[in-house]
Amino acid sequence: MVRAMGVAGLLLGLLLVPAVLLGASFGRGEPPPDLQPEPSEWGTGSDAVSEDSLWPLPQSLRTSHLRLQLAPERFQVVHGAGSSAGPGCGILQDAFRRYYEYIFGRSHWRKPHRESPSAQGELSQLQVVIASPEPGCNSFPHLASNEAYHLTVSEPVAILKADEVWGALRGLETFSQLVHEDDYGSFLINESEIYDFPRFAHRGILLDTSRHYLPLKSILTNLDAMAFNKFNVLHWHIVDDQSFPYQSIFFPELSNKGAYSYNHVYTPTDVRLVIEYARLRGIRVIPEFDTPGHTQSWGKGQKDLLTPCYSGEQPSGSFGPVNPILNSTYDFMAALFKEISSVFPDAYIHLGGDEVSFDCWRSNPKVKEFMKKQGFGIDYAKLESYYIQKILDIVSSYNKGYMVWQEVFDNNAQLKPDTVVEVWMSNNYAHELSSVTRAGFPAILAAPWYLDYISYGQDWTKYYRVEPLNFPGSEKQKKLLIGGEACLWGEYVDATNLTPRLWPRASAVGERLWSSKNVTDLQDAYRRLTNHRCRMLSRGIAAEPLFVGYCPHEARWR
Amino acid sequence: MVRAMGVAGLLLGLLLVPAVLLGASFGRGEPPPDLQPEPSEWGTGSDAVSEDSLWPLPQSLRTSHLRLQLAPERFQVVHGAGSSAGPGCGILQDAFRRYYEYIFGRSHWRKPHRESPSAQGELSQLQVVIASPEPGCNSFPHLASNEAYHLTVSEPVAILKADEVWGALRGLETFSQLVHEDDYGSFLINESEIYDFPRFAHRGILLDTSRHYLPLKSILTNLDAMAFNKFNVLHWHIVDDQSFPYQSIFFPELSNKGAYSYNHVYTPTDVRLVIEYARLRGIRVIPEFDTPGHTQSWGKGQKDLLTPCYSGEQPSGSFGPVNPILNSTYDFMAALFKEISSVFPDAYIHLGGDEVSFDCWRSNPKVKEFMKKQGFGIDYAKLESYYIQKILDIVSSYNKGYMVWQEVFDNNAQLKPDTVVEVWMSNNYAHELSSVTRAGFPAILAAPWYLDYISYGQDWTKYYRVEPLNFPGSEKQKKLLIGGEACLWGEYVDATNLTPRLWPRASAVGERLWSSKNVTDLQDAYRRLTNHRCRMLSRGIAAEPLFVGYCPHEARWR
Repeated sequence: MVRAMGVAGLLLGLLLVPAVLLGASFGRGEPPPDLQPEPSEWGTGSDAVSEDSLWPLPQSLRTSHLRLQLAPERFQVVHGAGSSAGPGCGILQDAFRRYYEYIFGRSHWRKPHRESPSAQGELSQLQVVIASPEPGCNSFPHLASNEAYHLTVSEPVAILKADEVWGALRGLETFSQLVHEDDYGSFLINESEIYDFPRFAHRGILLDTSRHYLPLKSILTNLDAMAFNKFNVLHWHIVDDQSFPYQSIFFPELSNKGAYSYNHVYTPTDVRLVIEYARLRGIRVIPEFDTPGHTQSWGKGQKDLLTPCYSGEQPSGSFGPVNPILNSTYDFMAALFKEISSVFPDAYIHLGGDEVSFDCWRSNPKVKEFMKKQGFGIDYAKLESYYIQKILDIVSSYNKGYMVWQEVFDNNAQLKPDTVVEVWMSNNYAHELSSVTRAGFPAILAAPWYLDYISYGQDWTKYYRVEPLNFPGSEKQKKLLIGGEACLWGEYVDATNLTPRLWPRASAVGERLWSSKNVTDLQDAYRRLTNHRCRMLSRGIAAEPLFVGYCPHEARWR
Repeated sequence: MVRAMGVAGLLLGLLLVPAVLLGASFGRGEPPPDLQPEPSEWGTGSDAVSEDSLWPLPQSLRTSHLRLQLAPERFQVVHGAGSSAGPGCGILQDAFRRYYEYIFGRSHWRKPHRESPSAQGELSQLQVVIASPEPGCNSFPHLASNEAYHLTVSEPVAILKADEVWGALRGLETFSQLVHEDDYGSFLINESEIYDFPRFAHRGILLDTSRHYLPLKSILTNLDAMAFNKFNVLHWHIVDDQSFPYQSIFFPELSNKGAYSYNHVYTPTDVRLVIEYARLRGIRVIPEFDTPGHTQSWGKGQKDLLTPCYSGEQPSGSFGPVNPILNSTYDFMAALFKEISSVFPDAYIHLGGDEVSFDCWRSNPKVKEFMKKQGFGIDYAKLESYYIQKILDIVSSYNKGYMVWQEVFDNNAQLKPDTVVEVWMSNNYAHELSSVTRAGFPAILAAPWYLDYISYGQDWTKYYRVEPLNFPGSEKQKKLLIGGEACLWGEYVDATNLTPRLWPRASAVGERLWSSKNVTDLQDAYRRLTNHRCRMLSRGIAAEPLFVGYCPHEARWR
């Protein structure tokens, strides 16, 4: 079977999908009828062709009927001739070992090799060739990283070419998805050729470690799952009102007082570990230190940081957003963000700036006096912008770029041209994307992908159907939409339910952000995603089911 | 603090709950404001009084400020003087060991004893006294089992009295919930007296192992959680359209052909294990073999069982409900239900009978002919009742009672007076309860507790607010409502998400079915359930969070 697509003009939908009809009654909760599988489709057929489980779908894919067998005891992933990376490239060495294990599984390492009757040859090597003189082995991924790759699978060796290691990582994932195990335990791959690259450069998952603490293991497991779905940004919403788990070196009282407890913290070592684990998978870690709102937990460990709210003439004892009228506030922020800028290597820091309530500022006589002096009248959005402006300047001075939530743009703060504006309000987000890009700012779309909102049934289709570029604007504006994020806010999520709530629902966002615009066939996606979910399961990710059915190896899994 | 309540006239609400106000903004997804906790309530305070984590709340509870300490290396759970049960009572021996471990945790077994400064004495024993000459040690729990108990905690020994072992099991759970660990690792209990008994006799959880296979471990874990919440019935919806995992001794082809795969089955050993594990926790196992609809998977391993559907003059190749016009159908059912009646010891079998579609029967010329011969006209509900009637007679002949879904009653089948009718249709279930009980049948309420339906936020309050007896009817009718079930249908649930989806949401149903009618204070319930959820977590149940916050030991948990 050949599914040929040019890189420029993709011809999708060539794969014939049988019309899905339903014979049986499916009980009390019915899914959308167009996604009810035939009884025969409930399992993962062992004669599945390899592209039936590719996720996200590559930009261009040709596969043939010719099947090659991989022998676990002989097969190798190696550096190819002419590659600028070699055995000294830790990022690749680690990935070679990792993907060998994903492909063959732990239980197969010692299994004697048998020849599969359906194989027409053997694939003995995957050669990885990095073309750029700067392969990126010791660097961090960044917004402009090149994730494109070209994969050719034919006897006797497969060749994976990429400019940089980041593309090689994506290609290794795709290669591993092409290999399937038949009923006899043989590992097979169809001769194939793939050109692939991401549609959007920023493909993020937001995790919230303030509403609930997430143990390190949960974060690392999530990074694994992100790599399986070609996500490349962990947006780490690390602190918020409820708790301050980030253990600061300069301000240890912030977590001593602001974390849920002494063991609900991320030590500097933890943070480094997350960053390195992510780097090895081509994933950026962008921390969010959201101010001036969402900072109740900050106030516990930093005196005079928050605005005292008043009840009439008297302080009420409660506190509002960060106090924007004190010099001490900016001294503190300058020192804290200096630390953050050095701890987190990414070129961007997320500065938040969302949902600032003005009630407390309004109640405070000193703030009112300050407003008068500054000529702000009663427009507290101006005070907010005044504050944000100073924070932006501080962070700029450390040579960092910043991301902000849309309110910062809406309130007309002066932003550097490379400021990334994240659009989260679901009410008419197309209009907001249009405004942000018209003003010339890069934008990230999060609004339709708030995965903490749950509902009965296959809501992945809702996330999948979103077309990010469906907003009014010029070609130039469209280019400014650099990606999107699936957000799993933590009000109702902790280590007990994080993984099955996020995966495979976030996978829908992953394909939308990676694959070509016209990859929209829901039935094809359903079949591929069902198989992809079983693969995630076999790799230790407790991804929940899309619908009725089973995975071949699940009974052993738990 | 004393919360005194008479068994007859409970005075709840004496515990003053501080009005919950909110200082901070809680981000993008807001829960109902009345359930947003104070920042100081986010954690589980170590100075919590013991009743702050009781779940479900006992019928009558007195506690004093006097605290006694338990020393892990000395404390014992023993048979008390005059008990009709002794060391030969396996069910209690097993429970003594189990609750010792729940109380002290595994890590504490070797910890040296320290005296707590806040303790005013020591509790050295819990003596369990069974009063009835037939304690029930070797029997199975049943609908009329006595689960009442009387627990007195005062220095130097606590006494737990119950008529039967089933009450002792419930009392042991309550006792374990009264013990709390202070900041120094000491185990403390307040002097207390509790009279307790369930409001409803049938308190069930429905698990569905057909839409997805659930590994044995998931089922056993769920039985643990059920015991922690004083549930006493596992309604095992074991087979359905999608798969037939029950491995029959007489008809092995049913699972050979009808299960998802050879390892997605429950062997006779598995089934025995589930039943015994449940028995040791005072939980009945009621299997459901739903016919004549919901039987697509049955047809794969049993020739001629299902009705061939017609398309015009020709069989269409698809099949409908069980074929009610063949003698072979009833021979098969008689043999299968004979096996089931002997494999499952409970006095009841659930026979299903829901959602029968008549389309296929209508299409089949032989069925039409049969209808004419029987004088049914075109009323296919009569054919359904004809079928059900024969199945009921078969099962009756094995001295089993039966449960059925409400349609069987609605279609006027002749039912034995002790038939339990389960009401599941959420549309006006109060009216249905009224009809069923007016006709003199015992009823089970499931309709408002379909926990497979999920939504954003604290939906446990919705389940909690249900008052089962809010239906029109006489006192005699009200007595016929013998309980309820929380149903977790399996379309979107497997081992990856079962536990956090079911718990603690099902706990809300658990308290509604156990505790007094006037236990309805949501804020008190929120606090107790938050602590109860942390306790479940510490006992290995991945119960999801109710809202923001943390559990003291969760960082170690995963």
